[in-house]
Amino acid sequence: MACDPNNGGEIGAENSLQSICYKRGSLRLLDQRKLPFETRYLDIKDSKDGWHAIRDMVVRGAPAIAIAAALALAAELYNLDAFNGSPKYAALFIAEKLEYLVSSRPTAVNLGDAAIKLKEIVSRAVAISPDAKSVFQAYIEAAEAMLEDDVASNKAIGSYGATYIRDQQKSLAKLSILTHCNTGSLATAGYGTALGVIRALHSADVLERAYCTETRPFNQGSRLTAYELVHEKIPSTLIADSAAAALMKSGRVNAVVVGADRVAANGDTANKIGTYSLALCAMHHNIPFFVAAPLTSIDLSLSSGEEIVIEERSPKELLNTRGGLGEQVAASGIDVWNPAFDVTPARLISGIITEKGVITKVGSEDFNIKEFVQKIAAGTLAQVH
Amino acid sequence: MACDPNNGGEIGAENSLQSICYKRGSLRLLDQRKLPFETRYLDIKDSKDGWHAIRDMVVRGAPAIAIAAALALAAELYNLDAFNGSPKYAALFIAEKLEYLVSSRPTAVNLGDAAIKLKEIVSRAVAISPDAKSVFQAYIEAAEAMLEDDVASNKAIGSYGATYIRDQQKSLAKLSILTHCNTGSLATAGYGTALGVIRALHSADVLERAYCTETRPFNQGSRLTAYELVHEKIPSTLIADSAAAALMKSGRVNAVVVGADRVAANGDTANKIGTYSLALCAMHHNIPFFVAAPLTSIDLSLSSGEEIVIEERSPKELLNTRGGLGEQVAASGIDVWNPAFDVTPARLISGIITEKGVITKVGSEDFNIKEFVQKIAAGTLAQVH
Repeated sequence: MACDPNNGGEIGAENSLQSICYKRGSLRLLDQRKLPFETRYLDIKDSKDGWHAIRDMVVRGAPAIAIAAALALAAELYNLDAFNGSPKYAALFIAEKLEYLVSSRPTAVNLGDAAIKLKEIVSRAVAISPDAKSVFQAYIEAAEAMLEDDVASNKAIGSYGATYIRDQQKSLAKLSILTHCNTGSLATAGYGTALGVIRALHSADVLERAYCTETRPFNQGSRLTAYELVHEKIPSTLIADSAAAALMKSGRVNAVVVGADRVAANGDTANKIGTYSLALCAMHHNIPFFVAAPLTSIDLSLSSGEEIVIEERSPKELLNTRGGLGEQVAASGIDVWNPAFDVTPARLISGIITEKGVITKVGSEDFNIKEFVQKIAAGTLAQVH
Repeated sequence: MACDPNNGGEIGAENSLQSICYKRGSLRLLDQRKLPFETRYLDIKDSKDGWHAIRDMVVRGAPAIAIAAALALAAELYNLDAFNGSPKYAALFIAEKLEYLVSSRPTAVNLGDAAIKLKEIVSRAVAISPDAKSVFQAYIEAAEAMLEDDVASNKAIGSYGATYIRDQQKSLAKLSILTHCNTGSLATAGYGTALGVIRALHSADVLERAYCTETRPFNQGSRLTAYELVHEKIPSTLIADSAAAALMKSGRVNAVVVGADRVAANGDTANKIGTYSLALCAMHHNIPFFVAAPLTSIDLSLSSGEEIVIEERSPKELLNTRGGLGEQVAASGIDVWNPAFDVTPARLISGIITEKGVITKVGSEDFNIKEFVQKIAAGTLAQVH
């Protein structure tokens, strides 16, 4: 069953592939385990279905997981036949369900943060709700807002990024962009961050071609990004991660745009392994290198990338196909070093594309991220880009 | 059946894995199609067996193919029961067999070159041979010399490289080396070029650890180099190609040593895709970057790397596992750019390790390869390194 927002009236990104299809009382998730071979959606009726979908990797990507969990519970609450209890008890019911959902992926920071935020909203709603149903209504609206906000935020990132990159290279009628990993509709609520910038350039008819890396060892590029690009008929080419330098040297890349797992206060960025190598190669070829990420990815408590701890993943991902589940490829007995991320220093980054504009180094050697964030909080950001 | 040179008296590298096991009248080739899962040798009785072994990829790597072909015919000639004919007819018989062997892989330059060289030797032998058997004997000795020369050449590369790299970093008790693709016993007659340097460092007990890349998309690193390293109990770690920059940043790499497909007169080097990216990352981290290759890889007719045409290989290698033969991985419909090689400019290369010494830039901005080669030809090379 395909997700057709035009018929179904779902909330989300109208023009791009959706991993999360939602309308009030109904949630369907694109089963990413079947990609890129099969486009199948699963019905998620309640928090139990949501828990299994997250644990079993039906849905992936930090923002997408958090929103899928929130909406699974929203669908459950909307369809509850009867609920005997006070507003306070309704809030407790929701809190318990949220804690259960968080247990599906205890290490997912976004999921935990979303649960905390939703519990706070529900707590506030208790005081002004005449009955349990009103509390549920407050929760449902808050969960729906998360979905809408994420898509709106990604669209803003796409728009700011596309405009900025285009303005920087006005002499070119069309631009080609290299990206890494998957930062698209399959990792977010819709549209995507770095892939959102590519989508926006394509919509504006100024995209020559998107290049995506395989993104070893888990192949998010060849499996997911390639799937999205083909799905939306964006002219696109897959390359081995190691071919990026040769591609840049050939003059076919006008900018590199990647996502971010975490951005430190100085602009150092943790992202999928291989990002640092791309940034070094881009600098050498004078190709601008952008990080596209929502402001929630910026962690001002980290003064630099030195403080980011890099997760090491299973050797199996390199030894076998299909992320470790498939047939053996490598020689038995070899040691493996398989870091999930690397850190790209701020000096290699040309700009950080957020939903509030592009943070650049104009007039400075360094990014002034703190000032940018403070201006947003104070409502005094002059929208230059 | 394993190749045991100590029992069998085979010619070759005594201390390392052998892909070519030869003693007069008997040739066995390690079936590389079974690697890294099964170590099996095939008996090659004659040129027909040799032709099939080359065509069916039992043996791979430019030097190894040429030598395997030459020795297949040597085994055939040694075991011929009777040959009725003049020395001239014996030479014709050999020439026809060589042409047949060349037809197993018509694009392999080394194979064609070896056939020409062997035919010349046989032609000269005709004049001084009393009978056909003497011509065959001359051929057999020439083919055996090719094997011995290649192994000796690789051992010299290993020795010069290990000594040079060690001398450059005397403050370190042990060194860790990163390599790319497979340049070992499985690609040569034995010992290897870049992997020969690693072997020599290990033998001298100054190797901390070897790091090998997967070498996408054909996985020569994870399949073959990892197999050789494990086989010889060299402490070694496999990484994704894209993790090399992060590994360098972590301080765990003291030098990068790679092989070469072709070296131009100015030192620009064509090698497996990804080499250029490694060289850029090494330069950024002030890590010396070496090319290890026999002098036959230097092509003085190419003034620079600009003149090297890069072969593009099948998209299947990225779309499916096992070099295109296995299951599908990538999304259907995506375009692919799959260059076999890239060119690393001489300015990123610290030295070119040959069997006659290390070509460096000492006292100059550029390599003086022509002078080095001329001195060797004139026998006036001062062995500094």
